[in-house]
Amino acid sequence: MKSMIVFFASLAFCVAGHVALAQDPLPSWNDGPAKQAIIQFVNKTTTEGSLDFVSPEDRIATFDQDGTLWVEHPMYSFVVYALKQVETLAEEKPVLKDVEPFKTVLSGNREAMAKLTLPDLEKIIAATFTGMPVDDFNAEVSKWIATAKDPRWKRPYTALVYQPMQEVLKYLRANGYKTYIVTGGGQDFVRIYSETTYGIPPEQVVGTAGATKYAYDKDGKPFLTKERKLMLNDNDAGKPEGIHLMIGRRPHAAFGNSTGDRQMLEYTKAGNGARLCMLVLHDDAKREYAYGPAEGLPDTKVGAFTQELYDEAQRDGWTVISMKNDWKRIFRFDE
Amino acid sequence: MKSMIVFFASLAFCVAGHVALAQDPLPSWNDGPAKQAIIQFVNKTTTEGSLDFVSPEDRIATFDQDGTLWVEHPMYSFVVYALKQVETLAEEKPVLKDVEPFKTVLSGNREAMAKLTLPDLEKIIAATFTGMPVDDFNAEVSKWIATAKDPRWKRPYTALVYQPMQEVLKYLRANGYKTYIVTGGGQDFVRIYSETTYGIPPEQVVGTAGATKYAYDKDGKPFLTKERKLMLNDNDAGKPEGIHLMIGRRPHAAFGNSTGDRQMLEYTKAGNGARLCMLVLHDDAKREYAYGPAEGLPDTKVGAFTQELYDEAQRDGWTVISMKNDWKRIFRFDE
Repeated sequence: MKSMIVFFASLAFCVAGHVALAQDPLPSWNDGPAKQAIIQFVNKTTTEGSLDFVSPEDRIATFDQDGTLWVEHPMYSFVVYALKQVETLAEEKPVLKDVEPFKTVLSGNREAMAKLTLPDLEKIIAATFTGMPVDDFNAEVSKWIATAKDPRWKRPYTALVYQPMQEVLKYLRANGYKTYIVTGGGQDFVRIYSETTYGIPPEQVVGTAGATKYAYDKDGKPFLTKERKLMLNDNDAGKPEGIHLMIGRRPHAAFGNSTGDRQMLEYTKAGNGARLCMLVLHDDAKREYAYGPAEGLPDTKVGAFTQELYDEAQRDGWTVISMKNDWKRIFRFDE
Repeated sequence: MKSMIVFFASLAFCVAGHVALAQDPLPSWNDGPAKQAIIQFVNKTTTEGSLDFVSPEDRIATFDQDGTLWVEHPMYSFVVYALKQVETLAEEKPVLKDVEPFKTVLSGNREAMAKLTLPDLEKIIAATFTGMPVDDFNAEVSKWIATAKDPRWKRPYTALVYQPMQEVLKYLRANGYKTYIVTGGGQDFVRIYSETTYGIPPEQVVGTAGATKYAYDKDGKPFLTKERKLMLNDNDAGKPEGIHLMIGRRPHAAFGNSTGDRQMLEYTKAGNGARLCMLVLHDDAKREYAYGPAEGLPDTKVGAFTQELYDEAQRDGWTVISMKNDWKRIFRFDE
């Protein structure tokens, strides 16, 4: 009798295993070339005996964050955080209330804020991302990420991750890929929520990073302070340079959405064997935002996807993902 | 009958499981406070319900390399490589034969070489570790590591890893710890052999690192060049700073052997809960080398273990490992 039970239990297990295999790993994707490119890439790089087989330890996939894994419009979330932190900063140092660009930010005048220059923004980022102990910065970001809400969707920023990309992350990991974020945003900032939001641990987040300085407090306890000195500007050529510094292996798959990701995709594609390079095109004004190279879409400075980048994608065999056509839903909370 | 077979098979499996658990995870260690400290640390941080339980994702352990995981005397292996590479360099650029410090290195005069200053060595490291494509550097190091032999043991440098520490690496990994190398040596250098030698993948090697520069060759193919610009000097305070940059979490265990590891151990110990900090003391002139703070041992510039460091270890509750007394054997090839 026991042997019968064992037999049926085994059978049930095999059937369940078969059903699991047959399940669609990317249910939020419409059938089409983008979905097919992902599935074919995974199949050929993980099937033993395949010409394109990649050994498990070499399975590295890198993802830009802003505009690739979550919403970046109308403004990068880390910039929203920086602007908000100016208020906290001005409470501590009231003198800032009369100093530009902080004065403009504190005025709340959106028209004036929209005219802030890149050097203005850099001053704001420097003032809110550096000059404090690492632990204090982490506590501030944790507080903000838990409470701040995007004004359009009235939800936490971490709820605005793209469900189809969450499925890609999980699908790749289920097939032995180590998934990394490679972001132009602040490395310490993204590390606060990467594990809970994307299932990506802090040590697999590569981002724009400044130096820290080791010192001791009055009780002799060591701590690290975030310095103003920039170590890695993780944009453009900084992305492959950052990948070399922090990972030391060339990715087999890379995902981005803007000119800042160009070199990461080139570097990925230049390796031997099968490589998957994809760019998310924001062409869905109704469900999210629309900007980029397609006809009628406006240019933008936030996540620029130029015609030149589009042409390079065509030439180099990268796949462009249309949010409008390739994604059944954008967010998990969508119907 | 089949059920009986299943029953006995299960029983055999359970017994085998029990035997495996009862096996000594550190067979090359003599019983004593060092071995006990490691085993107690693992038990209390991995037993659910323990006050000192550490969740699996937070289990980070960092290891210095030179003098902690493998032999560092009479000279760090990466310096041996650099000196050797001066010959290759001089073939490509014969003008170097008349320029110091290269002239002295090429003379082969060991007495003169021993007098090379730190700035001399820095020039040699810069000339042999930078200024070439990453791929060329990797190819040179791979060739050297596969063929070069230590003059005393007449074996490859990678054979001179300490067997007791290999057991600690495996024991920690078997208990869910992610093991990292945090070395003052060149990050790109160590990454070449870290996986095969220590089971540590390149992305878990933090070391002294320079900037790289992204560019295209004449066919438009992108590549990275190793630049002279130092990004991370992964010694002293640079170790916790490098850990923050590359890992982003405080280790729960840290192993070193010299003053260059002091801040890494302080930083590790300053965290909450159970922390394991250990220093390898080279006090075995017969089986390896002897230098450091114990009576009668000479000082050294290569892996200095000062009396001050020894005193701090006592005060802060770090464990000093005596190679002579705590290790049954040093190398795998020892009897």
